[in-house]
Amino acid sequence: MYFRMSVALRAGTARSMHFGVSTAMRAVTARSMHFGSAFAAFRPTPASIPPSDARFTLSTPRGLPVHIHPLNPLEFLLRAAQIYPEKLALAHPDVQFPVFYTYSVWAQRVQNFAYGLVRAGIQPGDRIAVLSPNSPMIAEALQGVIGARAIATTINIRLTKQEIDYILTHCGAKLIFVDHEYEHLVSDAKARIIVCNDTGRAGDPYEDFLTAGRDFSQEKGWAGLEMDADENKPLSLNYTSGTTGRPKGVLTTLRGTYLASIAEAFEAQLGMESTYLWILPMFHAAGWTFPWSLPFSFSTQITMRTVDYSLIWKHFLNSGVTHYCGAPTVQIGITNHPSAKKVPHPIKTIIAGAAPTAHLLSQLESMNFQSVHVYGLTETYGPVTRNYPQPSWNTLPSSSRAKLAARQGHAFATSFPLRVIHPTTTPGEELVDVPRDGKTVGEIVVRGNIVMQGYFQDPDATARAFDGGYFHSGDLAVWHPDGSVQIQDRMKDIIISGGENASSLAIEQELANHPDVLEVSVVGREHPKWGERPMAYVILHTESAPRWAGKHAEFSSALKAHARERLPGFATPEWVVVVEELPKTSTGKIMKTVLRKQAASAKL
Amino acid sequence: MYFRMSVALRAGTARSMHFGVSTAMRAVTARSMHFGSAFAAFRPTPASIPPSDARFTLSTPRGLPVHIHPLNPLEFLLRAAQIYPEKLALAHPDVQFPVFYTYSVWAQRVQNFAYGLVRAGIQPGDRIAVLSPNSPMIAEALQGVIGARAIATTINIRLTKQEIDYILTHCGAKLIFVDHEYEHLVSDAKARIIVCNDTGRAGDPYEDFLTAGRDFSQEKGWAGLEMDADENKPLSLNYTSGTTGRPKGVLTTLRGTYLASIAEAFEAQLGMESTYLWILPMFHAAGWTFPWSLPFSFSTQITMRTVDYSLIWKHFLNSGVTHYCGAPTVQIGITNHPSAKKVPHPIKTIIAGAAPTAHLLSQLESMNFQSVHVYGLTETYGPVTRNYPQPSWNTLPSSSRAKLAARQGHAFATSFPLRVIHPTTTPGEELVDVPRDGKTVGEIVVRGNIVMQGYFQDPDATARAFDGGYFHSGDLAVWHPDGSVQIQDRMKDIIISGGENASSLAIEQELANHPDVLEVSVVGREHPKWGERPMAYVILHTESAPRWAGKHAEFSSALKAHARERLPGFATPEWVVVVEELPKTSTGKIMKTVLRKQAASAKL
Repeated sequence: MYFRMSVALRAGTARSMHFGVSTAMRAVTARSMHFGSAFAAFRPTPASIPPSDARFTLSTPRGLPVHIHPLNPLEFLLRAAQIYPEKLALAHPDVQFPVFYTYSVWAQRVQNFAYGLVRAGIQPGDRIAVLSPNSPMIAEALQGVIGARAIATTINIRLTKQEIDYILTHCGAKLIFVDHEYEHLVSDAKARIIVCNDTGRAGDPYEDFLTAGRDFSQEKGWAGLEMDADENKPLSLNYTSGTTGRPKGVLTTLRGTYLASIAEAFEAQLGMESTYLWILPMFHAAGWTFPWSLPFSFSTQITMRTVDYSLIWKHFLNSGVTHYCGAPTVQIGITNHPSAKKVPHPIKTIIAGAAPTAHLLSQLESMNFQSVHVYGLTETYGPVTRNYPQPSWNTLPSSSRAKLAARQGHAFATSFPLRVIHPTTTPGEELVDVPRDGKTVGEIVVRGNIVMQGYFQDPDATARAFDGGYFHSGDLAVWHPDGSVQIQDRMKDIIISGGENASSLAIEQELANHPDVLEVSVVGREHPKWGERPMAYVILHTESAPRWAGKHAEFSSALKAHARERLPGFATPEWVVVVEELPKTSTGKIMKTVLRKQAASAKL
Repeated sequence: MYFRMSVALRAGTARSMHFGVSTAMRAVTARSMHFGSAFAAFRPTPASIPPSDARFTLSTPRGLPVHIHPLNPLEFLLRAAQIYPEKLALAHPDVQFPVFYTYSVWAQRVQNFAYGLVRAGIQPGDRIAVLSPNSPMIAEALQGVIGARAIATTINIRLTKQEIDYILTHCGAKLIFVDHEYEHLVSDAKARIIVCNDTGRAGDPYEDFLTAGRDFSQEKGWAGLEMDADENKPLSLNYTSGTTGRPKGVLTTLRGTYLASIAEAFEAQLGMESTYLWILPMFHAAGWTFPWSLPFSFSTQITMRTVDYSLIWKHFLNSGVTHYCGAPTVQIGITNHPSAKKVPHPIKTIIAGAAPTAHLLSQLESMNFQSVHVYGLTETYGPVTRNYPQPSWNTLPSSSRAKLAARQGHAFATSFPLRVIHPTTTPGEELVDVPRDGKTVGEIVVRGNIVMQGYFQDPDATARAFDGGYFHSGDLAVWHPDGSVQIQDRMKDIIISGGENASSLAIEQELANHPDVLEVSVVGREHPKWGERPMAYVILHTESAPRWAGKHAEFSSALKAHARERLPGFATPEWVVVVEELPKTSTGKIMKTVLRKQAASAKL
């Protein structure tokens, strides 16, 4: 638990008068276990210091029944600032100018952000674009927009300038917040741009924006900002990273975010004692609702600008990290880093983006990481299912256990139950469940509170995705007798080999078990006889690579032999290519479209 | 974690075919740590066994948007039955015929209950009365009514026959479920009565009702029951125990129960490993939403028919209990019982109903109980605030710490923030906050999702309670600078002594610190000079009683001297009476109306 060191905050100092908390409470504040002296020495900008009589209630719209208030995830931050004002909310330590914001200060900054938007003429429903790595600014934007009833559009900073131009135009951003490192990406943008130098110090244009917001508020505080009477209004607009085609804008709502983030906090067992390390980019599906789960549970968050494994390990070992999220590819980077060792206290890791292999799960377990395997899409606020471990697994051999743990499982705490249906081909077709036999492949569909409102300004795509009253995930899965789902493949990644449907994921799972394989991706390649045949792209383990150097043909034979023992003939790779790296999206997803093109043109 | 022993459930046995879960999962089931052989040997009625292809989704009303599903707390049980079918949901061990229901079986019984209601002609919105101590029947009723969209009216079994007649008439119950021990209380009722002999065996009229429900369902399962399209429909109708006047019927809603029970699960840190002991009667404010928090968190619950301290201690020491709720008076009974000792694993105890004294809190702490101090009313679904411990308290002396821990604190996770206002006298008067000075006494008011829909068929009382757009709690409190509230008294319990407002609670807190005082209650008594003066009713500690035997006048002087050192003159008790017991409501609340009458007529 990070609390500011007592030294700077003794009752009766001039400084303590700035906070609206009792002096008795604050006379002795628990010492920070981590970031101690840096945290104690840090001084936020004057505009970030809340008034001594701060109140933490948004103005309520008139006419609501006494027994209903609209669900609004900004409430979580306000509550944390009221109840634990001195707790460290957000640390951003790995930069030239580190910052450490307590909940009290952080809430003030978020309030300033909201007033800054109002001052800039932002109206309810206007889109605010944000281009930033993980940083206080993007975290503040995701809260602050709610105060001004605007919509946050956080954009993937690893997209091309053209893609970003498309998104900025499509969302019609009225204001753009950009991290100094990515300013060149918005040089053609028409909207007003606010640059953040990520210093947290006066003179930083972003800080000046916040200060102007504070001035503009005339100290009306939260009461000067009205909460939306309609909990179904949008909160964020998240563009899918789209491995093919134009990115689509996914609209989330206040209600959906509120309910999904509570489920996330519960499933991840976040609490007062938790410290979450931001490895997952916050611009990815609005950080899987963690931006709101963390204040809901009074957790501390640490932001890192880059996925730097040395830094990640430094935080694992020295900063009291208890939680982080990562796709398997990131997890592989973590567990195979030279600094990797058993962590001194258990760390919960939320794994999504692809099914973890048995090898990865056992590696994580041996290093004292507790895996929470979840599945979801941008359209489902990030995670919407979780693998719920069963006590009966404890007595199984680890390989069987890992296979069960690789299933995507059941719907999240506040989600409506999922279904797996026979893929539909015509609009309006009745949705028919596949049998729960663990064999029949169908499409995962879901409806309810943890589903997006729709695609922004794309009624056709929304109608297609919502056909039959359910959101169609595009993910192919089997449904097990216990009601858990297990993904076989993305619909477009399935390989039609000799008339059989071969799941590229299932092939990858088996190939990943080969001791020399670090990472693998399988795509279909045209075949004169079979239509398509699987082609495997493999990265070798660092230790194994020298042994196979110059002998890739032999490795290929060995891996094919490994596969033949475990897979049906139509699913055994016809071709194996050893590579140094795999093409990935900014969020760590392997871009199979790129691999497919490479496969098609490869000379073998 | 209680799971059924593997012996009865090996894959391939005929029995295992009755459950819709995979055989692989169930081949080896974790052994139950507690209730082992009794749990393994228990056989539910045939009607309680779900079909092998059970599905756990209520039928969805047509016309809902894809991205919204109505909040419905029955979803939690359905989800638990799907994900952890073999986990022990409910144990009822201390009766002639003990029962042990897994989530899978329990959900089937709840479904049968719902179909039983439909079969009996119950329409959505009809009231179903339940008179029962804690038992499977009342727990099933609180879930089952949701399936039939009826309203559960659980009635306090310790009320008089007249009071019960009044409630049955007022709520217009269409059907009455009554435990065999309380059948005489409903002998005049007009509605159809179903008696429960609490056996869980065929031949029990209640079990026959469930079996008939199952038959009536024609195996349509949950899909044959439609979830309410409107999440603001009522779920339960809970009559206040009303220390004065006619009991009022408090209507809760599906949405409110859903949100309050999630908050409860989060605040109490319920989870897979939790076992909740039902000491709090379920008929009290619908069990403070625990009936739904427990399946939400996959917890196990143990029901006990009576508050028997020997039995409670047996379960603390032998049944893996991790959570229970209790008013201070119950806590005193627990900590002062001959079996009391340090419990081997920490037990979380949720304290409400009155502020715990410093003495009680330190006693609980020394016995390895972790206190979660909450405050609420029937009108707020039970708890709506919680005392949030501050790290800064750790360095305070225990007496100061206990004083801070006795505050009622801040609003719950999913509640709207509370306010403390200057008490209003005329309808429509503007609500004005008292200063947050820890001194000015005002009334606690709250609005939003954790507030009742209103008083059933009592628009006048509802309008009075909801004046100005907030629910008026009738509890007087001060507001501290840190935003926490601290109750001073019920409005009607305040003592006007020499023109000063003396808080009976504050006086009790000080008197309870006297080493010879086990329990104390203070009321006002007419005084010729001062208008009113405090009168204290005291129960002595078992060890202290012999010392003061025949010397109550001396004890009275000693206690008054103790009070004079700690309280202003107008708050010092004028009279002290030693008693053997205090008049209490069934929920452990001291009935000050009774004491006031005793005080008025006492010859001193």
